[in-house]
Amino acid sequence: MLQRGLGGLVSHRHAKSLLRALAGQPPLPRSAWMPAQPITVSSSHFQSNIKDYSIPNASWSPVMVGLYNELMEKTVDGSWTRLPGCWRSLQLLKEADLARIAKAVPIQMIEDARLFLRITDTERLGFEYVIFHSDSEKKCVCLFQPGPLLEGLPGIIHGGALGTMIDTTFFATAYYSANAVFTGTMTITFRSPVILGSVVRLEATVTGTEGRKVFLSCEAQNSDGTILFAEASGKAIRILCSCCLCPSL
Amino acid sequence: MLQRGLGGLVSHRHAKSLLRALAGQPPLPRSAWMPAQPITVSSSHFQSNIKDYSIPNASWSPVMVGLYNELMEKTVDGSWTRLPGCWRSLQLLKEADLARIAKAVPIQMIEDARLFLRITDTERLGFEYVIFHSDSEKKCVCLFQPGPLLEGLPGIIHGGALGTMIDTTFFATAYYSANAVFTGTMTITFRSPVILGSVVRLEATVTGTEGRKVFLSCEAQNSDGTILFAEASGKAIRILCSCCLCPSL
Repeated sequence: MLQRGLGGLVSHRHAKSLLRALAGQPPLPRSAWMPAQPITVSSSHFQSNIKDYSIPNASWSPVMVGLYNELMEKTVDGSWTRLPGCWRSLQLLKEADLARIAKAVPIQMIEDARLFLRITDTERLGFEYVIFHSDSEKKCVCLFQPGPLLEGLPGIIHGGALGTMIDTTFFATAYYSANAVFTGTMTITFRSPVILGSVVRLEATVTGTEGRKVFLSCEAQNSDGTILFAEASGKAIRILCSCCLCPSL
Repeated sequence: MLQRGLGGLVSHRHAKSLLRALAGQPPLPRSAWMPAQPITVSSSHFQSNIKDYSIPNASWSPVMVGLYNELMEKTVDGSWTRLPGCWRSLQLLKEADLARIAKAVPIQMIEDARLFLRITDTERLGFEYVIFHSDSEKKCVCLFQPGPLLEGLPGIIHGGALGTMIDTTFFATAYYSANAVFTGTMTITFRSPVILGSVVRLEATVTGTEGRKVFLSCEAQNSDGTILFAEASGKAIRILCSCCLCPSL
């Protein structure tokens, strides 16, 4: 299923026209909520950014790289796949799903938008992560090294930043295992604080399906599994047909 | 209680020495997880940043400013208070709580850390928000205008970004109403997608307390209350004494 997903990668230009046409609406009038603000994220960057962010860089700790290498070994026989790290969700969604999403929600193209996880370009400071997926096990493993700009209490990760990574791992698990694109409900129990710069290993699994609902669970632990940082359950929603107009369930 | 909180604002310099002393540890060896990476967030900025981020700026939409003005009127008789928007949580925590937190969790000072909500400096692009608190009603209202860097699906806010704002509103409600500092559990049900650039009004309330536990609820709606974006419940944990070493409950 992942191969199908990656094979269906759409170009930004294609997705942009597709979404505008499907949404049947002009672009969001940015001036309505951005009076005279400069755009600091260049649109040329947006057009050309095809970098894969989920490859080790100099900011990854030896522990993070070690876990990455262990998971890469599992990809050799094809049972696991490393998901490429994208800059916008447009780059990873299957084309048919983009069309369905555009019918289900009032999508507006915003020129300088980017995936929340890519809110900062500089390595180390924000979300350093990579996600691996197993279709047969309906599972994802995410390695995550939170940078210093993800602080909540002093020196500790913000609950919302860990929640963002859990939500993202849920999305990848549900999307690549069961074609679900909307998060319905998510419950997170925070067990131990995560120090900025440490390594978190998240493992999410599809625990069941029921019609359009896909049920999920996730655990976030330290690198050797001796500390449970958080555990979570979730429900994602599948779009089963293009006529579905119910994003809210 | 808010007055006490704000009255107890600590300087960064003070907090830094306090935390180092209390934690009884040297600063985190950044080189262990940041081999040869440049620091792009200047430490002089860190030392001097006392800007209040929760005052309207040019990127706020007329709707956002209108709601802000309505809430500001409620502050005239002192029943509600506008919480200043800080750059690090160090700037808003009461000094005694900083000491308690440092005993309860292994806090390390990281020079270029900053509050997750301030991950981008440029107005409009990230989290534009302000929180108002009522001590008598044990409630907070947060106005939130998500910028284009908070994207999940194309043109729509990332569930983690909305979750971050809910978590932050929960924290403010629990901290200023009941002295709770750790988020224990948080359940979010996403009802409708939030378009980037629109205005979200979050209202969170303390629904009960039981020993160290503080129970919370939150609704996120559009500006006129006709669309429910998300609803959430949560549990925060109070630190009742300085000898408490149990952040995980």
